[in-house]
Amino acid sequence: MAAAPVWSVDPRSGNPREQVAAEATAADVDRAVRAAHAVRDSLADRATRAAFLRTAAEHLTAAADRVVTAADAETALGPARLNGELARTAAQLRAFAEVVEEGAYLDIHIDHADATRTPPWPDLRRYKIPLGVVAVYAASNFPLAFSVPGGDTASALAAGCPVVVKAHPDHPATSELCAALLREAAAESGLPEDVVTLVHGFDAGVALVRHPLVAAAGFTGSVRGGRALFDAAAARPVPIPFHGELGSLNPVVVTGAAAAERGEEIGAGLAASMTMGVGQFCTKPGFVLVPEGEGGDRLLKSLTDAVAGTGAGVLLDHRMRDAFLAGVTARTALPDVAAPVAPGAGDAHTVAAGFLTVPARLLTTEGPHDALLEECFGPVTVIARYACDDEITAVLSRLPGNLTATLHIADDESRGAAAGLLAALTPLAGRVLVNGWPTGVAVAPAQHHGGPYPATTSTSTSVGATAIERWLRPVSYQTTPDALLPPELREDNPLGLPRRVDGRPA
Amino acid sequence: MAAAPVWSVDPRSGNPREQVAAEATAADVDRAVRAAHAVRDSLADRATRAAFLRTAAEHLTAAADRVVTAADAETALGPARLNGELARTAAQLRAFAEVVEEGAYLDIHIDHADATRTPPWPDLRRYKIPLGVVAVYAASNFPLAFSVPGGDTASALAAGCPVVVKAHPDHPATSELCAALLREAAAESGLPEDVVTLVHGFDAGVALVRHPLVAAAGFTGSVRGGRALFDAAAARPVPIPFHGELGSLNPVVVTGAAAAERGEEIGAGLAASMTMGVGQFCTKPGFVLVPEGEGGDRLLKSLTDAVAGTGAGVLLDHRMRDAFLAGVTARTALPDVAAPVAPGAGDAHTVAAGFLTVPARLLTTEGPHDALLEECFGPVTVIARYACDDEITAVLSRLPGNLTATLHIADDESRGAAAGLLAALTPLAGRVLVNGWPTGVAVAPAQHHGGPYPATTSTSTSVGATAIERWLRPVSYQTTPDALLPPELREDNPLGLPRRVDGRPA
Repeated sequence: MAAAPVWSVDPRSGNPREQVAAEATAADVDRAVRAAHAVRDSLADRATRAAFLRTAAEHLTAAADRVVTAADAETALGPARLNGELARTAAQLRAFAEVVEEGAYLDIHIDHADATRTPPWPDLRRYKIPLGVVAVYAASNFPLAFSVPGGDTASALAAGCPVVVKAHPDHPATSELCAALLREAAAESGLPEDVVTLVHGFDAGVALVRHPLVAAAGFTGSVRGGRALFDAAAARPVPIPFHGELGSLNPVVVTGAAAAERGEEIGAGLAASMTMGVGQFCTKPGFVLVPEGEGGDRLLKSLTDAVAGTGAGVLLDHRMRDAFLAGVTARTALPDVAAPVAPGAGDAHTVAAGFLTVPARLLTTEGPHDALLEECFGPVTVIARYACDDEITAVLSRLPGNLTATLHIADDESRGAAAGLLAALTPLAGRVLVNGWPTGVAVAPAQHHGGPYPATTSTSTSVGATAIERWLRPVSYQTTPDALLPPELREDNPLGLPRRVDGRPA
Repeated sequence: MAAAPVWSVDPRSGNPREQVAAEATAADVDRAVRAAHAVRDSLADRATRAAFLRTAAEHLTAAADRVVTAADAETALGPARLNGELARTAAQLRAFAEVVEEGAYLDIHIDHADATRTPPWPDLRRYKIPLGVVAVYAASNFPLAFSVPGGDTASALAAGCPVVVKAHPDHPATSELCAALLREAAAESGLPEDVVTLVHGFDAGVALVRHPLVAAAGFTGSVRGGRALFDAAAARPVPIPFHGELGSLNPVVVTGAAAAERGEEIGAGLAASMTMGVGQFCTKPGFVLVPEGEGGDRLLKSLTDAVAGTGAGVLLDHRMRDAFLAGVTARTALPDVAAPVAPGAGDAHTVAAGFLTVPARLLTTEGPHDALLEECFGPVTVIARYACDDEITAVLSRLPGNLTATLHIADDESRGAAAGLLAALTPLAGRVLVNGWPTGVAVAPAQHHGGPYPATTSTSTSVGATAIERWLRPVSYQTTPDALLPPELREDNPLGLPRRVDGRPA
């Protein structure tokens, strides 16, 4: 049987553009994984890896026009957004080059022998080594930053792990182009091209997570798809770590004082954040607790004006458009739910942004309105109007895990009740914001892009310097002669790495 | 239906000693978990936790005679070993008090706002917070150090997580006594007693890992039991981290030069390590590659003399004795397997230590001899005699994951082939030793007690300072007013904690 063709599709028309590849068979996946595994030792040298990551950033930047054109044709995200995403992706590759060079991620601990301990300590030296071949599942909504050249790939390569990427069907041509750029960069850096390979197809993705030589996986996508792969990773004879980012409602709480102080500003900020990228960010604020009364009314008026003025947008594919329309229809049909600006279909290929309102008291106990507490991918948010702080607490206690949770307070509210609200939001999310908006994720060492399930399937981050930790495991060497130790652990620290020696930084 | 009684049993006779508790029903487990969850905030203060851990160490030490007597009566491990284990357990509690006080485990990252970044960075501050209630599954073979007051409990409490321990049926009375000591220490430290609770029973253990308010689990035990609980943890609606230490063969490679140089010494060291604690250590060297020829023969002679001179020992329970006898019988019956000192039954309640030999070439490809590559709990090890280095490599490539891997080399072998062997052993284990023995695990910051599956189900360690990382997750605060931040993240560092600020240690 011939392998199924993989088509690049124009989401603005729904028409196929070109056939760019074929779906990988099980044999193709096996070949890709074995090839990656065979070249894993080529990534052992940190300086080579850092140079490779920088060269990859250069190639991506040099090909920016081609990459952005390809990505826009397949995703309709627009050149402005895609140029920004490309710059961020290149910056991310360079940031991981710095992480590799500094070497703090190796988490080196050296304990000299100490006979006074209970039991006595032999000489012990620990650092972290790469896990092996990493499977990366590309995201629909970030064709660059969370796809072939994205954070999972960059952090895995930084860790010293070869990568097999499963392309997202929404941008196969962009994926092919980016994979070619990465492979060129590898060759230019003196590395085998197979440190990064690309496969297409749903079945290939399943085969990949089950392959005995795949040592870990990174995923960004839906709860349904991510959970299926997580389950497959856990059910293997040898289970592997599965770092999946699955779904997030990203709740926002606006205090009465905040609404009174700057309801209009908060409404406008919310509109911008929830419609950004046609509402297709995993950090889109999808649920907002707004006070009843005059301040909240002003917030809603401002939100109404801004959202109504947003043009129709194209979603990443028609399946997503169908899911969005079904999602907003079901939610709008619930009793006591209003749609001041109705989300729904634009023309045959677009969707119109909107938002729904509901009394918060309907969400304090289990019921049909619980559908409003589930993520709806696309340009819609739910405003729950609350009458008292008890309703806030009751609703928050019913929310699933999130990537982010946001609090809007007034200028003079930095103590008291606001502290209580912050404490109630912290267990819900991996990133907690005050007076900001969760879209736009800084690629910074202090970033944490992850959160309680279903936000992520592990306690790790997929953005920022510490994302490298996902692809490493510690190993300790005991009473090993200096000449046999890896240079990272030798007594005289020939590589000048940061370490903890005898329990203290050195 | 009345709850099933829990009996303390004397392994030296197989006779029940006393009824010490009742098996926990599902309602009991629910009550214990909810009680633990309800008091979780009491563990928020680091100084209080450190004081509690030290007080627990004091109570354990003050009650040493009672604890050791109780443990010996149930485990037959003997007062010398148990006094050592108690000292180690107390030292472990104190070591985690130091970890908590130093605060490096909080992994604090602070990035100030930086508009020059792509995309711009807002102020971001990250540290780690406790996951919530931790379920600890006690080990059979360490009634103290890996049970109620052991490393999982100590590290979870250090992280700020209340603990519900599932007692091991081999030492219920010791478990009750230790739980009472820990709860007394909690009360004396101003904490609710329910920061540590104890449940008994197999079904209780299953109910525990499935409880919605249990946030993570630690386990030390068999592959079968651990895998069943791992699967249950992964199959939950909200999966939780399951840090299980399941099983390990702990391979040893003796080079020809090492055997020639000190075959007798290596044989004697192996005998001591494999029979220590009646062969019931998870780090027991269970598989040893020994060269054919004169040096290897001397090693075996020395091993034979030492093992034959070892008295019969009592295993932890009669089920283990049955499994040991069945395991050695099946292995001894394999073609070309010899038993220079036959392991087997002593009297009705004891077992005799022994070892088996097999040509390594029989293990280079799949076959019935693969049973020799599986852990057999108890005082037995397998010596595979190799004819050439290729056989070493071939056999090593077929081994499952291990806690430890050991290399014995000669004095002048610290380069060349020895480096290649060390490189072949490193992927197999979490701790690699040269010219030592894997039993006796130092509780040190550089320790790594874990390894590729089935050694552990995660990349974490269960021994040493970094074991605390298992019970934490990161959270980042974005653009949060200083007065609302947790003190750990405030700009002026009021707690004097180690941090990384703007990408560098500060």
